[in-house]
Amino acid sequence: MAAFLPPVLSDTIVALSTPPGAGAIALVRLSGPNAIALTDDVFSGKRLRDQPGNTLHYGTIRDGERILDEVVVSLFRAPHSYTREDVVEISCHGSDYIVQQILGLLTRRGARLAEAGEFTKRAFLHGAFDLAQAEAVADLIAANSALSHQVALQQMRGGFSQELRALRARLVQFAALLELELDFGEEDVEFADRTGLVALLQEVQVLVRRLLRSFELGNVIKNGVTTVIAGKPNAGKSTLLNALLNEERAIVSAVAGTTRDLIEDEVSIEGIRFRFVDTAGLRETTDVVESIGVERTRKRVQQAALLLYLTDITLNTPAEVKAELEALNPDQQIPTLLVGNKLDLASEAQIEAFRRLPDTVLIAAASGAGMEELQEALLARVRGEGLDQTGATTIVTNLRHARSLEATAAALDAVLIGLNTGTGTELLAADLRQALAALGEITGEISSDDLLTSIFTQFCIGK
Amino acid sequence: MAAFLPPVLSDTIVALSTPPGAGAIALVRLSGPNAIALTDDVFSGKRLRDQPGNTLHYGTIRDGERILDEVVVSLFRAPHSYTREDVVEISCHGSDYIVQQILGLLTRRGARLAEAGEFTKRAFLHGAFDLAQAEAVADLIAANSALSHQVALQQMRGGFSQELRALRARLVQFAALLELELDFGEEDVEFADRTGLVALLQEVQVLVRRLLRSFELGNVIKNGVTTVIAGKPNAGKSTLLNALLNEERAIVSAVAGTTRDLIEDEVSIEGIRFRFVDTAGLRETTDVVESIGVERTRKRVQQAALLLYLTDITLNTPAEVKAELEALNPDQQIPTLLVGNKLDLASEAQIEAFRRLPDTVLIAAASGAGMEELQEALLARVRGEGLDQTGATTIVTNLRHARSLEATAAALDAVLIGLNTGTGTELLAADLRQALAALGEITGEISSDDLLTSIFTQFCIGK
Repeated sequence: MAAFLPPVLSDTIVALSTPPGAGAIALVRLSGPNAIALTDDVFSGKRLRDQPGNTLHYGTIRDGERILDEVVVSLFRAPHSYTREDVVEISCHGSDYIVQQILGLLTRRGARLAEAGEFTKRAFLHGAFDLAQAEAVADLIAANSALSHQVALQQMRGGFSQELRALRARLVQFAALLELELDFGEEDVEFADRTGLVALLQEVQVLVRRLLRSFELGNVIKNGVTTVIAGKPNAGKSTLLNALLNEERAIVSAVAGTTRDLIEDEVSIEGIRFRFVDTAGLRETTDVVESIGVERTRKRVQQAALLLYLTDITLNTPAEVKAELEALNPDQQIPTLLVGNKLDLASEAQIEAFRRLPDTVLIAAASGAGMEELQEALLARVRGEGLDQTGATTIVTNLRHARSLEATAAALDAVLIGLNTGTGTELLAADLRQALAALGEITGEISSDDLLTSIFTQFCIGK
Repeated sequence: MAAFLPPVLSDTIVALSTPPGAGAIALVRLSGPNAIALTDDVFSGKRLRDQPGNTLHYGTIRDGERILDEVVVSLFRAPHSYTREDVVEISCHGSDYIVQQILGLLTRRGARLAEAGEFTKRAFLHGAFDLAQAEAVADLIAANSALSHQVALQQMRGGFSQELRALRARLVQFAALLELELDFGEEDVEFADRTGLVALLQEVQVLVRRLLRSFELGNVIKNGVTTVIAGKPNAGKSTLLNALLNEERAIVSAVAGTTRDLIEDEVSIEGIRFRFVDTAGLRETTDVVESIGVERTRKRVQQAALLLYLTDITLNTPAEVKAELEALNPDQQIPTLLVGNKLDLASEAQIEAFRRLPDTVLIAAASGAGMEELQEALLARVRGEGLDQTGATTIVTNLRHARSLEATAAALDAVLIGLNTGTGTELLAADLRQALAALGEITGEISSDDLLTSIFTQFCIGK
């Protein structure tokens, strides 16, 4: 088990916990043994030291004689707080100047400016939640679609951790029996039932591999699906995007700050964001293979998670489209969805010709015909087995967790092979310990100072 | 008295009260008769309806079965709240997605999205504070220097209003006596002592004019002083700015988002911000009068509140400098401060020649000599009589208030002239009523719906 130094929790930390900038309200948060006394000393109103937890108090913050602001103070007493320490939240006017004055006053009086994620780190160190849950707090703040929000919230509330702990608890039992056998090393006893162990290991292995597979989808949920749309001019791309955007206008307009020069539009379909990337290159030439434009498009396709190739089925034959697709995606590395447009204007023969192609959806973007099938097809391309329709299954979204699960799977494989080849108990026990350590890293039952630092510095200040 | 429609306060309003963007915490605020019930219906934890005011409650916000977030709810019961209505603040994770989900949920259940400033408007309508105090809330949020913060806070806490109300109360007394005389119109009685009235009016007039004069300074405090620095190359401008910035680095770096392409640097001297504007034009030619560069510089000088002309006294004579200044500021409209640099390298004769000029400060920017005198001179240029050194005097910072004070002064003048020329009581009373109305507009004792709308729409949403 990796050791980590005992945390320094004796000081009181302070930070602005709301986004910076002008607004109605800003929150300055303190946590630590002196949080209440420190605030009390600069607060005029009630005597905060004498107040019970979970109460609100109106008053002023004073720097000597000078009034800094009229505020409302929220008082949380340990352990009934986010960090499980005494916590004070000062709700002041939302001015950077005032916030700086208050932070300056409190730090001069002994509080320390909190590092990124330090409130959540303290909550973890005090056992308020495990590491996977703490990491989910950052994911929750970053969540910008229904699914990413749901997955982060479920993880924060411990769903993922529970599943892992259950797995781990069963392995621990067997590990203990193996360790016992080691104590009786010379006597060649078998406390651990080998057949039961194989069955259990296989069961755990299935679960670990399911979680690992869910990471592909989890990554998509967290980061969205970069979808390159290609096609000749007038294939109907804009109409298609408008049709997709139609019901999602509100969500799209809410996604501010995305790189607009590259990404044409974002559409959230059943909570999964598709980031559609333009490929203007195909407009500039009819010579598909040789043009620079296509070279650029092909580069974009290589970076894409999904290629959506749109074609006007009244103008193009399946053979032509196949050739175009091969030029774009010669080694077929990128999952491709062929979308035939202008279904409403096409002849029976034209429709039939395209219907026979695999991975093809026919639509009429202008009238909206086939849009549901298209959405289903898009979802099918990115959904693995990880997600059942109720969304109840646990999904791994964190690269660190995926790496630990990979290590677990490898160690379990080693144990299984060892059992098959009659490896000695000592080696089996070592491999099993490794599997347990890898699983324990996810929830932080096993953690190092470096690991904690690297996790919590990814948080924002004040959380 | 201008009538305004009775306010519609029967609905419950909701808004995000912290700045938008990702952060640790976001606050969604509700105010109105259904604030608690509305929240209670989507909150799982305690039954909020049964909880006392000024308490904090942990739980989850749910949209049907779906959990939106884990939150802490602050409960304020009327009249012990900012708006004097029932108020709920939902402290959720600082994600725009979550905030939108919660706002969407609450509005679907009957809350209305608050307009800009609507919480503060309700506080005003419920008599929590008067109009000048409400306006100071917006000023306080925008405050970015010690003085602007102090003035806004004093106004928000009612200092300004108190002074005005005292003035008005004394005028009201006399107005009442005049009205009484009108009731006895035929009998030619004089209840109001004319000599006393003149003395009172003159006293009030002095106060009103002092407040009016303070507006010039108030404007400077609120908006800073645009100071154009001009001078030949190598006069030492950069060294001067660095010397000024030396002690103010922290404040300057905190002023983000200023137009960096125009404003070279901001320095806060005793709480007043000086925004120094570069004039590169003088670098391009030695022909001061004819160059395009000087034309540009002159344009900037015209927009400035203060011109700081820096010269190297070892290289230039007072006569040359005078000529340069005249070219820049021919009609001497802009207050000018001449700063002679390189005091440490100059001869006795050079120093003496410049010492004789008015409005001149001699410094050695490189060594810091004379910097205190320069700061004092800068302050003297912008400080009127309005500010005594303790800062205790009331300062008008709001253009609307200045306009009302002007109207008050004009009406008082009319009354005074009327008294001198023996005008009839009827006209005197009418003029006095006008003065009272103008004063009453400032604190909102007299207000119209249009006025209130124009004031509160300048607020941010959520305040």
